[in-house]
Amino acid sequence: MVSTGNAISDGQPLPRVAILGPFGTYSHEAADRYFGPTARYNEKLEIKDVFHALASSSADFGVVPQENTIFGSVVDTYDALRAMGRGYIVGEITLRIDHCLVARTGVRLDEIHTVLSHEQVRNYVDAIALISNQALGQCRLFIAKHLPTATTERTTSTAGAARALLDRPHGHAAICSRVCTTLFQGLEVLREAIQADSNNYTRFYVLARGPDVKLPMNRPRPSESHRTGVIRIIIRQTAANTSSSTGIQDALAMLNTSISRIDRRPLAGVPFDFVYLVEVQDEQQGQHRSVPEWKQYIETKVEEVLKAGFSVDLIGAW
Amino acid sequence: MVSTGNAISDGQPLPRVAILGPFGTYSHEAADRYFGPTARYNEKLEIKDVFHALASSSADFGVVPQENTIFGSVVDTYDALRAMGRGYIVGEITLRIDHCLVARTGVRLDEIHTVLSHEQVRNYVDAIALISNQALGQCRLFIAKHLPTATTERTTSTAGAARALLDRPHGHAAICSRVCTTLFQGLEVLREAIQADSNNYTRFYVLARGPDVKLPMNRPRPSESHRTGVIRIIIRQTAANTSSSTGIQDALAMLNTSISRIDRRPLAGVPFDFVYLVEVQDEQQGQHRSVPEWKQYIETKVEEVLKAGFSVDLIGAW
Repeated sequence: MVSTGNAISDGQPLPRVAILGPFGTYSHEAADRYFGPTARYNEKLEIKDVFHALASSSADFGVVPQENTIFGSVVDTYDALRAMGRGYIVGEITLRIDHCLVARTGVRLDEIHTVLSHEQVRNYVDAIALISNQALGQCRLFIAKHLPTATTERTTSTAGAARALLDRPHGHAAICSRVCTTLFQGLEVLREAIQADSNNYTRFYVLARGPDVKLPMNRPRPSESHRTGVIRIIIRQTAANTSSSTGIQDALAMLNTSISRIDRRPLAGVPFDFVYLVEVQDEQQGQHRSVPEWKQYIETKVEEVLKAGFSVDLIGAW
Repeated sequence: MVSTGNAISDGQPLPRVAILGPFGTYSHEAADRYFGPTARYNEKLEIKDVFHALASSSADFGVVPQENTIFGSVVDTYDALRAMGRGYIVGEITLRIDHCLVARTGVRLDEIHTVLSHEQVRNYVDAIALISNQALGQCRLFIAKHLPTATTERTTSTAGAARALLDRPHGHAAICSRVCTTLFQGLEVLREAIQADSNNYTRFYVLARGPDVKLPMNRPRPSESHRTGVIRIIIRQTAANTSSSTGIQDALAMLNTSISRIDRRPLAGVPFDFVYLVEVQDEQQGQHRSVPEWKQYIETKVEEVLKAGFSVDLIGAW
């Protein structure tokens, strides 16, 4: 059961988690898998609003999409990270984007004559966060095979398709995420993973107000096979052209750590100066470092790069 | 004067240059500055169509936006580059995105009562290629100061605003690129660079059908202060996690060359495998290598990385 703010407190104040809304999105589902019912969720209209909530301390944690395996990096998240002051990345969670066929409890597949889904893409973030422009397209094979005579109808959001079922007669179904069946009473999943492409995953960052905010102890922890850190490096092209050791290749070499992702965004206001967001991983085989040990290790590396004259800081470790 | 296909041939067949259309976009302006009147321009609706034209040999060259200093990398261009087979990047050109106030010849600034502009953003590529969602916004200060009583009106494209002036009475002006005044007879630039932000540049790649296609000898060459190469590296995360020398950091270190840009895109069909597009620059101070010398130098480096087991190739040098 997904919490939207009605979870029962165990005496401790529930952590406030800002998510990219509306409720029922995959960001909501990711947050729920990470924090479970031990959190109070707060839906935000845009990714930057999640970061604002952390900066103003109106949220303790935030969950934002970082990249999707089809659409790539989420530009709005990277643009917020390049300017992030107080926030800190404390975790990650990856979801397979499964589209489900959902209907009112008791409705059979052969009764469905109308399928509701969100296909309209308002902007690039929508495309990545909701993967909504693919929902009907990706499920067309399923519909053609199992519901050949059904008509399709567009709704304004994924959750909107699920909510609309409550006011509709039997025979209506919605394409949406599994989390939607837990938002509204009386719905159930008829068929799961009805999309054609199973290579559709979205990876999310879990953010905290700051590096020292403690994660809830009783959260259901995802399996952790590696330690990850995110390092922010600013490269000024003018400087890079005049000196021999201020290029991104020098900063990366000095880190001397396994790199799993490099992303580049323009530095606001200065043409062709860049911010690199670099994800590093623990190279230590077998026994992994504890999070504090790993954080200290990366901080030492970052300090070395800083001493060499780079604008660099650690903006996350887990 | 910008050519749209009416240029006079000097006996040699004119190179066919595919651009991101419609005519009047900044891609058109960039192509015109690079090739001048010695080319036959062919407008394409989408970036991928420019690449298709090169792959099918229906164009000799192509001009596509690579990055903008406000919006960042152009995802559609990088997605085409990651899959590019025959094409090759042979040059670059950077334009400052200046919005001009354009009117019919003879119209004075104090006569303007209506300003036409393209503000609608259809998609992310529009946002970067046309910078159109900023046109009115960026020029609001100018309008407030110089045309405080003017009303604004939206058109479907930048060139559309300019074209519409021909059918309008005196008193109408358009916000568009300078190139638009050369597309239609009877228009002139009333004021130049009316945008608030002067840090708005777009950098374009010039592509050829293949590495050995010769650039027109009489093209107006932009000043060349450095040699650049673009290297494509595929990193499979599964492999990177099991071996100690197949991470992107190892490939970059082996290149042992100054790196000016690193961009990452998902590898189609394989979750969390990536394609890196890496721009390198000649480190040699003072006397620069010739293009063939530089190309050979980079090819040697790429060969070393290839021998170490990486999927890597050179997709441009100039």
